[in-house]
Amino acid sequence: MIYENLDAANKSVVDKIISAQPFLIDVVPAKTVIRELESMALLHAGPPLEWEDMTEPMQGSCFGAVIFEGWAYTKEEAEKILSEGKVKFIPCHDVDAVGPMGGITSANMPVLVVENRENGNRAYCTLNEGIGKVLRFGAYGDEVIRRLHWIKNVLGPSLSKALNKIEGGMNLNVIVSKAITMGDEFHQRNIAASALFMKDIMPSLLESDIDEKDLFEVTKFLADTDQFFLNIAMAYCKSVMDAAKSIGEGTIVTAMTRNGNRFAIKVSGLGETWFTAPVNMPKGLFFTGYSQEDANLDMGDSTIVETFGIGGMAMIAAPGVTRFVGADGFNAAMEISEEMEEISVGHNPNLAIPTWDFKGALVGIDVRKVVETGITPLINTGIAHKKAGVGQIGAGTVRAPYDCFAKALEGLVEKYASDKDN
Amino acid sequence: MIYENLDAANKSVVDKIISAQPFLIDVVPAKTVIRELESMALLHAGPPLEWEDMTEPMQGSCFGAVIFEGWAYTKEEAEKILSEGKVKFIPCHDVDAVGPMGGITSANMPVLVVENRENGNRAYCTLNEGIGKVLRFGAYGDEVIRRLHWIKNVLGPSLSKALNKIEGGMNLNVIVSKAITMGDEFHQRNIAASALFMKDIMPSLLESDIDEKDLFEVTKFLADTDQFFLNIAMAYCKSVMDAAKSIGEGTIVTAMTRNGNRFAIKVSGLGETWFTAPVNMPKGLFFTGYSQEDANLDMGDSTIVETFGIGGMAMIAAPGVTRFVGADGFNAAMEISEEMEEISVGHNPNLAIPTWDFKGALVGIDVRKVVETGITPLINTGIAHKKAGVGQIGAGTVRAPYDCFAKALEGLVEKYASDKDN
Repeated sequence: MIYENLDAANKSVVDKIISAQPFLIDVVPAKTVIRELESMALLHAGPPLEWEDMTEPMQGSCFGAVIFEGWAYTKEEAEKILSEGKVKFIPCHDVDAVGPMGGITSANMPVLVVENRENGNRAYCTLNEGIGKVLRFGAYGDEVIRRLHWIKNVLGPSLSKALNKIEGGMNLNVIVSKAITMGDEFHQRNIAASALFMKDIMPSLLESDIDEKDLFEVTKFLADTDQFFLNIAMAYCKSVMDAAKSIGEGTIVTAMTRNGNRFAIKVSGLGETWFTAPVNMPKGLFFTGYSQEDANLDMGDSTIVETFGIGGMAMIAAPGVTRFVGADGFNAAMEISEEMEEISVGHNPNLAIPTWDFKGALVGIDVRKVVETGITPLINTGIAHKKAGVGQIGAGTVRAPYDCFAKALEGLVEKYASDKDN
Repeated sequence: MIYENLDAANKSVVDKIISAQPFLIDVVPAKTVIRELESMALLHAGPPLEWEDMTEPMQGSCFGAVIFEGWAYTKEEAEKILSEGKVKFIPCHDVDAVGPMGGITSANMPVLVVENRENGNRAYCTLNEGIGKVLRFGAYGDEVIRRLHWIKNVLGPSLSKALNKIEGGMNLNVIVSKAITMGDEFHQRNIAASALFMKDIMPSLLESDIDEKDLFEVTKFLADTDQFFLNIAMAYCKSVMDAAKSIGEGTIVTAMTRNGNRFAIKVSGLGETWFTAPVNMPKGLFFTGYSQEDANLDMGDSTIVETFGIGGMAMIAAPGVTRFVGADGFNAAMEISEEMEEISVGHNPNLAIPTWDFKGALVGIDVRKVVETGITPLINTGIAHKKAGVGQIGAGTVRAPYDCFAKALEGLVEKYASDKDN
């Protein structure tokens, strides 16, 4: 190892996170930037898994994506293609991407392109589909498919035109550092960041060559979609954490994700290796008519935001969210953040949180500290119905399982033990 | 008195505040709703005063307004007209209006029209002029006049068209109750409310018959003006506090304002009577090149927001602002709010503040409590240069002077003493 010790390596990882310069530069069809999607393939959230191991909401998303791509016209046809193994499954994380909930991403879905200018790498994420029945939570009805086509034909191209009018792209550090002072933690709550994004994109949208009806629809969609920024935040965090991963040493978590079966993490010293454990069941508040019994196991790449230090790791920034996710008031938010502080290396000076007396958001989850304290990251999350086709039924929190951190630590011991032999 | 006692009267006043339903329904030329502006007249902030008693920045605003109206073409000509007494001065408050800083409002300036539907009354306020040199801080150069014309010809009519597309107008309670969870206290900080306003108005702007160039300029202006909502908040609070005033009994402050010389308050039991005392000097942070010595005395009707219970009265909602106004971090914001709690009757359940463990913003400043405790309301404010033509030089806080509350209490004693005689 080129670093004096693990703390020095970790400092380099954290410096990489703090010095990141992610810009939102474009929105393009996924297949144009992810070559793997040129053949019959779908991206999914979490570590690798096959069709038969997917929980129902992820399978529901696959039905929708297959129908959207025109590989099938009915759920039954889609199921046949999928169960016959004709579609290749690739984790989003393997191709510089992240996807919310099921994370199912197909060739013609537009993706956000975030470039981390400090490091030169890019990250991708689909566009937020808005409210109501949505693919990411496992719904695949006509309404869902129709909206995916509108996103492909209208929303994506319009945002692309507008972003191309902004010299150098949209500086996401500016939006994130403002919005964290406005009650957003960027997982459960993105109302400020979404409004700031809309404020920044509107003049460029107006300057772009966009059909009047389309412009109105895009504007209305942005105005109505308080979680629009979530997907941008995910690509933002992915672009930062992939840069951090490039350090190649240390004990800092560089990815956390879940596929409905397994929760998986990567650590800075061990590259692309996933360390996994069974996912937990999210707990929280449910929409009328649903309860904990209907909940699917935890899934989605959105935990990339907690990996970066926001979401549940920054609960104190969003005391307004604590009740929504089942925790009590301000003090509960404070306690969670103080607990998360115990497993983090430091604070991000770019993200001062007024409600935390202007301390920065946390940065660098240290596997050693997780294993020492037994405290695992708290994640804010949406909750899907366990049956395909229903969609979101609530929102809450879930803990990352301890075992994947313990396994990662064992892996690190092995690596650095053999390093010393050399 | 029809109420059993003063507490019961105050409860009615507070109920009137809490049950208010203010909607932003239009933007119209001031003279169309304020008849007094049909002749050569100007509205000003604070209690009544004449030309020779105005501090320089308010006089500077008058030069600008006279030139804007075409009553004169130069500062010298304007000064002549004004010093010869040809222009009648009317307090904004006397004609259902409020004005920021100098508060100078003339016939052809567009004003926001806020209707408090619970009570049927309306309140008016000019549009926020944006950043840079602005009339309200006493600047009156070409740039200022040109922008006033653009506001008159483009911004005002465009917003009017858009607001007329919104059935029933824009429900301001919704924006205010959201934005108070997003770090706005609505005096020094309106970034969330301004973004939410823009989000809500954009679809209607696009649906309106507005020239493409104008639409772009309006959109850009709204995107660039983080304090745009301040003037809406002022008209909102004025519409609420005038309704509260209609109760006609009790010891609740229904208006606070300052004209650069006198700080003045009204109380619910004593109708339109102003109780005044010399204004204090605001203290705070100054733009580069300026210092406390350059500061003008406190002025503006914007203290209507503190009267309602936000601004400095809700510092804890905006810990992000405490540093800007010279106070320290989160705990200082908490201390201020706890201090303000001592002079208030209760909490407004519509305005839950997450950083205050979801307690509502304060409601009802009780003159008796101010006199008992010696604590006077804390006001967040902009600071003007004491010379005409310079404009804003900083921002900070200022205390309402004790004497006007003491005088009001004396007035109340007299009123209720003679009530008992009857």
